[in-house]
Amino acid sequence: MSTKHSKVPNRMQRCVVITAAGGPEVLQMQARQIPQPVAGEVLIRVKAAGINRHDCNQRGRGTNPVQSDIPGLEVAGVVEAVGEDAGGVEPGMAVCALVDGGGYAEYAIASSALVFPVPDAIDMAGAASLPEAAFTAWYNLFSVAGLKQGESVLIHGGTSGVGVFAIQMLRALGHPVYATCGSDAKCAAAEALGASLAVNYRTQAFDAAVTGRIGREIDVVLDMSAGVHMQANLEALAYRGRIVHLSSGAGAALHTPLALIMKKEARITGSLMRPLPLPEKAAVARMLKTAVWPHIGAAIKPQVAHVLPLNEAAEAHRLMEQGNHIGKIVLRVA
Amino acid sequence: MSTKHSKVPNRMQRCVVITAAGGPEVLQMQARQIPQPVAGEVLIRVKAAGINRHDCNQRGRGTNPVQSDIPGLEVAGVVEAVGEDAGGVEPGMAVCALVDGGGYAEYAIASSALVFPVPDAIDMAGAASLPEAAFTAWYNLFSVAGLKQGESVLIHGGTSGVGVFAIQMLRALGHPVYATCGSDAKCAAAEALGASLAVNYRTQAFDAAVTGRIGREIDVVLDMSAGVHMQANLEALAYRGRIVHLSSGAGAALHTPLALIMKKEARITGSLMRPLPLPEKAAVARMLKTAVWPHIGAAIKPQVAHVLPLNEAAEAHRLMEQGNHIGKIVLRVA
Repeated sequence: MSTKHSKVPNRMQRCVVITAAGGPEVLQMQARQIPQPVAGEVLIRVKAAGINRHDCNQRGRGTNPVQSDIPGLEVAGVVEAVGEDAGGVEPGMAVCALVDGGGYAEYAIASSALVFPVPDAIDMAGAASLPEAAFTAWYNLFSVAGLKQGESVLIHGGTSGVGVFAIQMLRALGHPVYATCGSDAKCAAAEALGASLAVNYRTQAFDAAVTGRIGREIDVVLDMSAGVHMQANLEALAYRGRIVHLSSGAGAALHTPLALIMKKEARITGSLMRPLPLPEKAAVARMLKTAVWPHIGAAIKPQVAHVLPLNEAAEAHRLMEQGNHIGKIVLRVA
Repeated sequence: MSTKHSKVPNRMQRCVVITAAGGPEVLQMQARQIPQPVAGEVLIRVKAAGINRHDCNQRGRGTNPVQSDIPGLEVAGVVEAVGEDAGGVEPGMAVCALVDGGGYAEYAIASSALVFPVPDAIDMAGAASLPEAAFTAWYNLFSVAGLKQGESVLIHGGTSGVGVFAIQMLRALGHPVYATCGSDAKCAAAEALGASLAVNYRTQAFDAAVTGRIGREIDVVLDMSAGVHMQANLEALAYRGRIVHLSSGAGAALHTPLALIMKKEARITGSLMRPLPLPEKAAVARMLKTAVWPHIGAAIKPQVAHVLPLNEAAEAHRLMEQGNHIGKIVLRVA
């Protein structure tokens, strides 16, 4: 058990703050005190921070008393200082980490349990693009959906941040994987990443013809479409298949035939990663380190669409909300 | 391993047949050959046969090539003959059983794995009311929903055949149980059977006021309402709660807010018992024999609303479809 302390810079840092509920323009640079890691935590000097759809939603809702007003759920950088019991994480290590907000900043706090080494072949922007997608894909596929060896997966949102990671991870782990995307270019990218078939849902209904081309029933659907494909999902689903929702849309409601749910004993579920208790996140991290991290840089390559400087976070949110990108958008921190 | 044979009466039997798709009047008495048990099967001389909503739905759809045109999923009676490998079931035993159709008859075939002894305190009408409810309640609560020790259950349809059994079983096994019913009399019956609270959904919305009276969140909902209470279900549901649908209504569609599913990591599912493979039904039967059958006649008493003679099956279906009964409707076979 490590009990070392290390010195936290006693100065202000630059960070991006959600100053009000609103559009990207409410993101503004501010100076804040550099945070102190407590027991079990590490302080990371941030080199890059990943952007997630969650951050845009958080910005649209505005700040709340229980969350940092600095957005950002994932960072890559160098460990600057560690609290007690930092589980072997040492100052100077190149790491990426899932963080509970605070990522759009020069320094960020992470639980040591949620820190990963940056593989040699990966740059900091690439490393910052990994944690949220890795946790989301693993937790939802294996913990929520209970994905079993050899089962097939359909991903609605194949070139989203989660999608590009999940396609590569599933392929690396031997699962047949299929996707829908919103353009032909995105479909080509999803297939290049390892999807056996990707369908442009804007030009082709995801229907029986598609499931015929897939040639098998789908065991697990990872759905970022907010329920758009629900009927088709159920028709394509195998007996005891699971549908996991990662996007609630704008308060969208499912419209789902009960008879099909019962006939297939389908499970419709969904999750939010951020409120998950730390011990559960730590369990996911242990699985990722064992089963997934050895593939990073080889079978699983970061897919970074845009890198913008920290002070262009608003523009990064605009790009995210336009949705034309393939993979992740990342902020570069000086 | 038993390999005994026994003699099957070489004569015709009276039975009720679905002669067309339609109302109760399409149920007509016919004479048919008494069936022969093959390996693993037993022939039961039927004394009573339970009526289920499934039978009414089957009658409404009409016959199909893969199912018996004789309805009836549960019987009680005396074993008349056994095939090879009948697993210790012997001619002369008083039994009740889950059957794959064919129950509305003087003789019915059951898999020996799905045969239960009739406890001393129970008459044949009561015994015939048990199998379908017991299998449905156990399978959906424990296999589909994964009910854990001490978790709470809400049953929409508290005085249905499944409801009256499930309330008593859950109470006997130490689970808090709540119900909704369609009349004050049904609510009183559900509470008398062991529900801590039963709400008349016709006169009181199942809403926050009710969940306030329950005073805890619900872990598992057993829903025979075809999705009527979906929004309230999700609001009352505990984190990682499960909602299991046993009735699809008339092609009803769920209308469910995705955000609540995700926030609670809720699982919405459902099942059909009849198509379940025999090994899975046999596994349920083993659990029922161990964990539930010792309570039959004591903590769990059959709830038989009406007993009608076999040749009044049409009237029995009318009573079922009127839905004013509490518990089960049973046919008496001479």
